Amino acid sequence: MAGSPDSEHAAFLSALRALLPDDGLLTQSEDLHPYECDGLSVLRELPLAVVLPRHRAEVQAVLKICQQYGVAVVPRGAGTGLSGGARPSAGAIVLSLARLKQIRALDTSNRTARVQPGVRNLAISEAARPMGLYYAPDPSSQIACTIGGNVAENSGGVHCLKYGLTVHNVLALEVLDVSGERLEIGSQAPDSPGYDLLALMMGSEGLLGIVTECTLRLLPVPENTLVLLAAFASVVAAADAVSAIIAAGIIPAGLEMMDQLAIEAAEDFVHAGYPRDAAAILLCELDGTEAELQERLRAVEKLLQRQGATSIRIAADAETRLLLWKGRKAAFPAVGRLAPDYYCMDGTIPRRRLAEVLEQIAIWSAEYGLRVANVFHAGDGNLHPLILYDANVEEQLYAAEALGQRILELCVAVGGSITGEHGVGVEKLDSMCAQFTPTELAQLHRIKAAFDPEGRLNPGKAVPSLHRCAELGAMHVHHGQLPFPELERF
Amino acid sequence: MAGSPDSEHAAFLSALRALLPDDGLLTQSEDLHPYECDGLSVLRELPLAVVLPRHRAEVQAVLKICQQYGVAVVPRGAGTGLSGGARPSAGAIVLSLARLKQIRALDTSNRTARVQPGVRNLAISEAARPMGLYYAPDPSSQIACTIGGNVAENSGGVHCLKYGLTVHNVLALEVLDVSGERLEIGSQAPDSPGYDLLALMMGSEGLLGIVTECTLRLLPVPENTLVLLAAFASVVAAADAVSAIIAAGIIPAGLEMMDQLAIEAAEDFVHAGYPRDAAAILLCELDGTEAELQERLRAVEKLLQRQGATSIRIAADAETRLLLWKGRKAAFPAVGRLAPDYYCMDGTIPRRRLAEVLEQIAIWSAEYGLRVANVFHAGDGNLHPLILYDANVEEQLYAAEALGQRILELCVAVGGSITGEHGVGVEKLDSMCAQFTPTELAQLHRIKAAFDPEGRLNPGKAVPSLHRCAELGAMHVHHGQLPFPELERF
Repeated sequence: MAGSPDSEHAAFLSALRALLPDDGLLTQSEDLHPYECDGLSVLRELPLAVVLPRHRAEVQAVLKICQQYGVAVVPRGAGTGLSGGARPSAGAIVLSLARLKQIRALDTSNRTARVQPGVRNLAISEAARPMGLYYAPDPSSQIACTIGGNVAENSGGVHCLKYGLTVHNVLALEVLDVSGERLEIGSQAPDSPGYDLLALMMGSEGLLGIVTECTLRLLPVPENTLVLLAAFASVVAAADAVSAIIAAGIIPAGLEMMDQLAIEAAEDFVHAGYPRDAAAILLCELDGTEAELQERLRAVEKLLQRQGATSIRIAADAETRLLLWKGRKAAFPAVGRLAPDYYCMDGTIPRRRLAEVLEQIAIWSAEYGLRVANVFHAGDGNLHPLILYDANVEEQLYAAEALGQRILELCVAVGGSITGEHGVGVEKLDSMCAQFTPTELAQLHRIKAAFDPEGRLNPGKAVPSLHRCAELGAMHVHHGQLPFPELERF
Repeated sequence: MAGSPDSEHAAFLSALRALLPDDGLLTQSEDLHPYECDGLSVLRELPLAVVLPRHRAEVQAVLKICQQYGVAVVPRGAGTGLSGGARPSAGAIVLSLARLKQIRALDTSNRTARVQPGVRNLAISEAARPMGLYYAPDPSSQIACTIGGNVAENSGGVHCLKYGLTVHNVLALEVLDVSGERLEIGSQAPDSPGYDLLALMMGSEGLLGIVTECTLRLLPVPENTLVLLAAFASVVAAADAVSAIIAAGIIPAGLEMMDQLAIEAAEDFVHAGYPRDAAAILLCELDGTEAELQERLRAVEKLLQRQGATSIRIAADAETRLLLWKGRKAAFPAVGRLAPDYYCMDGTIPRRRLAEVLEQIAIWSAEYGLRVANVFHAGDGNLHPLILYDANVEEQLYAAEALGQRILELCVAVGGSITGEHGVGVEKLDSMCAQFTPTELAQLHRIKAAFDPEGRLNPGKAVPSLHRCAELGAMHVHHGQLPFPELERF
């Protein structure tokens, strides 16, 4: 803020106070504490204030006041993100979209839902179920996380192998730019003229605009569903089975892998009936009409046997199916009970590199003296190694970070990326320097500048400054000059 | 170009001449004529020169020379585009990518193809067929059109209902920016960190960068395929049948509609065995394993009967199937024989609005005294009304343009868009003023500026200048000032 800092600050807050109801503006330290971090709880910062607008007009007015006073804005959904994307920045306000939680329309003939950003992911499927429809992307946090945050992170879930990420299930967005101007992006038509701003908004982590309404694609609930549980004597055999299923042209609704450490932890925790002696298990969900299902079941069973599955269980009834999934969904907290702390990684690799990457992680695990459990979306090549450590032992903390960084660099080296679905946020800024060249990072900053020339939307997130990468040694800085001086401010 | 125009011009051409082999630089008027337009042949302009580089390094060098001399660049694939996207601009060079036509790799385990932009669409599927794979998007021009052009237009085709547009089938791109710097965009992983530049490049009509390599997703050739031909006594009944099929959760591989005028024209031309007395026909392709196919066939047959189909034919053998598709694929030239000229429209609408939009087109057809044939991707809501007229009768020419504009405005009004797959190019610049608000257009221009600040890549295409829209009366111009003065140059 310009001018005398104190008077500017007071003027800014009183402008917000004049706009919002009493409970729509939080400025007291005790009220701000719940907002000091998101799911990445190791990084905390108190915001200047938290605003909780109730509708688009209030969001617009907040953005205009922030523009007038030059204040940065950190948008926030449910705060379940794992990479610190909603962590406040010093001097910024947190713009919570939690009160924009109306389902505006459910259109059965067109199979769409129009919802505000603060609607919880699961609430959409619950509302659509009486019409036989549901919203497909299902992140593990779907009970709590909201659709605005899903758009910001381009969230996936167990079923995104078949049904796609958030980007594949959102048809249109209403977005406010940093100055509060309204943009309608996308349509119900399959393609739109102009540049694809819709895809650009997906996974942009709140850096490009504020979503105030989403039009979502709904799908018919599948007629039948079953889950296969296959056990393997080695992680490599399980990984090869994943490749074999996909190579056969079968796209399961979900295809998840867990290794022995994860199996035992989950079994102790929820008693799902997993085979404790297996080196790895696959959970493979199939859905469709009865005839499709039986045909695919036969094909998958044959493939699993050919790939050396030591046992195969089929859960056709809802109860057993849910129990098998319960073990998978509880795997993170279950593994969490094995050590004081765990570091959840999120990288993607081309599917055919699964076996070798898992082998390399096992080698490093021994080398660093840290146990690593693997529970992940195998069909997508989206890994979630969980590194177990004790944060009170300093060497273990550093070793966990170093091991994590090596795993992400390996993901990039085999042609994958440093994040599958958890985003970059503040957690992975340094890894972005490994993922992208200076030319590519500069292009990302120019996109940011095209939406937010002053860099006031969620500053310091998602795309590292060129200086930061230069300091990490990833970039040549000629006589102290970065190659793209016009991008100094990012 | 700055400096003495003649000497700058000569210096520019001799820089290109030093770089390229003799047949890689065309400057003589007779050599330039084949490049004066693309598939939109009514708009012609001779370029300054045509360059035909052979590999990425030559493309880079051409771009650097153009940057040095401030010359604009019009990229060109096979020149089959229908909206004038590859039409030369005065003083610009045409950068033909026709000689970058190598298939660099076919990876069966990962099911991907790595190809240069000048590879023909159909050539990819031909090369992949021995491995049981193919590339899904199949625009009607697939014998001739190249993958670089498909990326530029985000091309679809008969099968994009089930298998998606180009954007859904491209995994990664190598792109040169306007200064020749290389960007690697996308990966083989399902999601990438950073903003989604991959989707942004799709359909960007050569305004953001030059594609020098594409990594494509290949699909397994379906085990079985069959085509249903259903006849209806009214266009509305056929449109309702389309909605009923999709509402039942069935996604056919293709779902096309033809009205009576199109049926008769196609029948006279290729004798596909279409029912001449039908008001409309649907062609519905189903694919999958034998069990899936039989199950879906029964479901679709039942739905078609319930929706009042007057006859249903099933083509299971390849010969009949191809004959039925031949009529559809030849429909444009067949309709072309009915009148001296035809104007091929390309708009999209939400599927459930099909019946009412077709009815309105019929009313306007009578009102304007111009016959309109409809042949289109019904499942996608992608209309292709063909307006028949005689360009030698001036009133007919104007009437055809006016009718076309009204149809596009109707598409926008019902929630659709002014182009499905043919792009904006130069043809639809004015319609873009109806599709987007000034705020939205300004955002598109800022995206352009983030890639090409001087506006030298394919200038004057795809996104109209704000001045142009203002002159059309779509925008308020305050005291002669546009609302976004920093975007004056676009």
